[in-house]
Amino acid sequence: MPATTTAPEGTPAPHTPRPFQMSQNLLSNVGNFKFIESTLREGEQFSNAFFDTETKIKIATALSEFGVEYLELTSPVASPQSRDDCAAICKLGLKSKILTHVRCNMDDARAAVATGVDGLDIVIGTSSYLQKYSHGKSIAMIKEMALEVIEYVKSEGREVRFSSEDSFRSDFDDIMTLYKAADAAGVDRVGVADTVGCATPRQVYELVSTLRGAVSCDIEVHFHDDTGCAIANALAALEAGATHIDVSVLGIGERNGITPLGGFLARMITLDREYVTSRYKLQKLKEIEDLVADAVEVNVPFNNYITGYSAFHHKAGIHAKAILNAPSTYEIINPEDFGMTRFVHIGSRLTGWNAVRSRVDQLGLPMTDVQVKEVTQKIKAMADVRPLGIDDTDSIIRSYYRELQT
Amino acid sequence: MPATTTAPEGTPAPHTPRPFQMSQNLLSNVGNFKFIESTLREGEQFSNAFFDTETKIKIATALSEFGVEYLELTSPVASPQSRDDCAAICKLGLKSKILTHVRCNMDDARAAVATGVDGLDIVIGTSSYLQKYSHGKSIAMIKEMALEVIEYVKSEGREVRFSSEDSFRSDFDDIMTLYKAADAAGVDRVGVADTVGCATPRQVYELVSTLRGAVSCDIEVHFHDDTGCAIANALAALEAGATHIDVSVLGIGERNGITPLGGFLARMITLDREYVTSRYKLQKLKEIEDLVADAVEVNVPFNNYITGYSAFHHKAGIHAKAILNAPSTYEIINPEDFGMTRFVHIGSRLTGWNAVRSRVDQLGLPMTDVQVKEVTQKIKAMADVRPLGIDDTDSIIRSYYRELQT
Repeated sequence: MPATTTAPEGTPAPHTPRPFQMSQNLLSNVGNFKFIESTLREGEQFSNAFFDTETKIKIATALSEFGVEYLELTSPVASPQSRDDCAAICKLGLKSKILTHVRCNMDDARAAVATGVDGLDIVIGTSSYLQKYSHGKSIAMIKEMALEVIEYVKSEGREVRFSSEDSFRSDFDDIMTLYKAADAAGVDRVGVADTVGCATPRQVYELVSTLRGAVSCDIEVHFHDDTGCAIANALAALEAGATHIDVSVLGIGERNGITPLGGFLARMITLDREYVTSRYKLQKLKEIEDLVADAVEVNVPFNNYITGYSAFHHKAGIHAKAILNAPSTYEIINPEDFGMTRFVHIGSRLTGWNAVRSRVDQLGLPMTDVQVKEVTQKIKAMADVRPLGIDDTDSIIRSYYRELQT
Repeated sequence: MPATTTAPEGTPAPHTPRPFQMSQNLLSNVGNFKFIESTLREGEQFSNAFFDTETKIKIATALSEFGVEYLELTSPVASPQSRDDCAAICKLGLKSKILTHVRCNMDDARAAVATGVDGLDIVIGTSSYLQKYSHGKSIAMIKEMALEVIEYVKSEGREVRFSSEDSFRSDFDDIMTLYKAADAAGVDRVGVADTVGCATPRQVYELVSTLRGAVSCDIEVHFHDDTGCAIANALAALEAGATHIDVSVLGIGERNGITPLGGFLARMITLDREYVTSRYKLQKLKEIEDLVADAVEVNVPFNNYITGYSAFHHKAGIHAKAILNAPSTYEIINPEDFGMTRFVHIGSRLTGWNAVRSRVDQLGLPMTDVQVKEVTQKIKAMADVRPLGIDDTDSIIRSYYRELQT
């Protein structure tokens, strides 16, 4: 028997759990992605959004300090104020690079370059719906316009992305033709956009991994959340080799919006905590969400990722017991990473004696397990009648404890 | 040339778009799933939830009329009122089958059977975290208890599901051992639960498809939304052969909740509209969400799937133009299926003249395209200064039109 072994004879080897493992994925960029933060472009398309110059500057500054790599702004041709604000934000000297999102034509591209942006996100609709009902252009025409714009933007020394719109309902041969031509012309990124929110994660993985094999430039992805897959689709795209993810604060955008910055960070911190915590000032997330929620006059949803008020609330007795022993039992995210705190609810009919024991100990009352179980029954009986707050449960515990003394 | 052809000579064949296609999937149950609706169990674990008997009955009745196949209720051993309410709901004669969610032991199982439920959802923690920090039982002990409980429940003529908890962090050999034993003992369903919300869609697909090959019973899945994948994971599970999906109204549950009923229907209606519209009274969704939101004192999130107030709002000029020509250009879901309506916003700096033309026509004002473009510039200039409501834009249009007359 080797000298280093200390286990007594007959002790079984310690059990190392082996959870279900995925097959290895060599394409994955899960630990290596960049944000195109689009609160000031896609977010401005949210129904309630009206950003004045001061608000735009506050949001851009906060996001740059948070650590997002790119900020995307509304096209300068949308309105005179949009143009002036774009130029003003370019002059702030933020750490984030500044992009603007423009239609695929020379007039828009020239106006964008004139504002001083670091790069242009060029977009054109490629689905048959958009060819028929929106711009009416053929793929050959789109290609010709795209190459002219790309050449111009590169000659001006700016970054350029070429994106199709509604990519998952576009003819696949058409968009591959365009992406390959754009790649050959030297674009920095091609963009895949699920403009209507129809894509599924498996479709995204298959399409992006096919595209990954066809172009050598970076791949940006943009997902709407109409069918609840905007976060999962962004993850699937990274797994398939995408490099840049479009997000906005609280996901605000057209209709019910796009991949939310906070929700996507909730997803990624469980997969590469080191990458996420080293790049982004996570403790600032709530402040930024509150800033944007105020600006567009919405409440942060009760069930918002990480910052929603119940995100770290635990209630069922069976959960509370384990949470008190070891938080990771029922938490995949550590609330402290985001400056948030956990709360174990004991004032409900679903509570258990282990949760109550924890509160009894916090109150400094010496009680036996039998006594804690008895007062737990009193709490559950009262909670069957009406909801109880922490003051109610404390009163029940204290009055039970006083009775014990007499 | 065949007589049926009417195209003039030299016309190219009509272009049929061929979007990216997935490889065929023979496991998929995307067009064949059932709901385990858990607002009255998982939902009762939501921080704010306190349901009195009357509210429980209202919710159960509304969900049954909506068409959910199963209703899951809190364990009757949670409290005396929980037991009485469970028995009362069983006596209502609802179309939905009634289940209760109980720990894996004989006392809980007997109490559940005594309430008159149609079935029991048995659960036990199988991860090393839960074995260590919660119940402290080995897999061999779990198996023995599970088989005793399953045999008893079947002997009482009820449905029985056996579920692991925290399945994605459990030892895979352990849970497969338990699932196979439960299957052999005649369970109706085995359950896979992502209790902490850590699973990714690709993991779910691989784990469930592996399980699908190992058991012959139905497969139920339960996904928490901590990392934003609860809807996508439920879809991935169906694609891999799962049969039953746990949902709650607005997703309410522990922490930020589980797969939401409405959001999941948004996902599924785009994949099998016939199945979804034939089984569920979709026009009742908003009423049920409002009922539950009131009962737990939350606002329906601004970005809620389908019923959130901006879910069918269109704002950017480039979008509005196409939406007015053909709604499916920017809508993957028809709002009318859910009794909702579309709204095209024209009072912003992002608006376009096609959207304004549509409002001008609604107002019955005869104006040329040149005139509409001119008034659009007036609207954009004003919207650069402050947000505009529909009354503001109507005033601008009407006063411009009056000027034209003079």
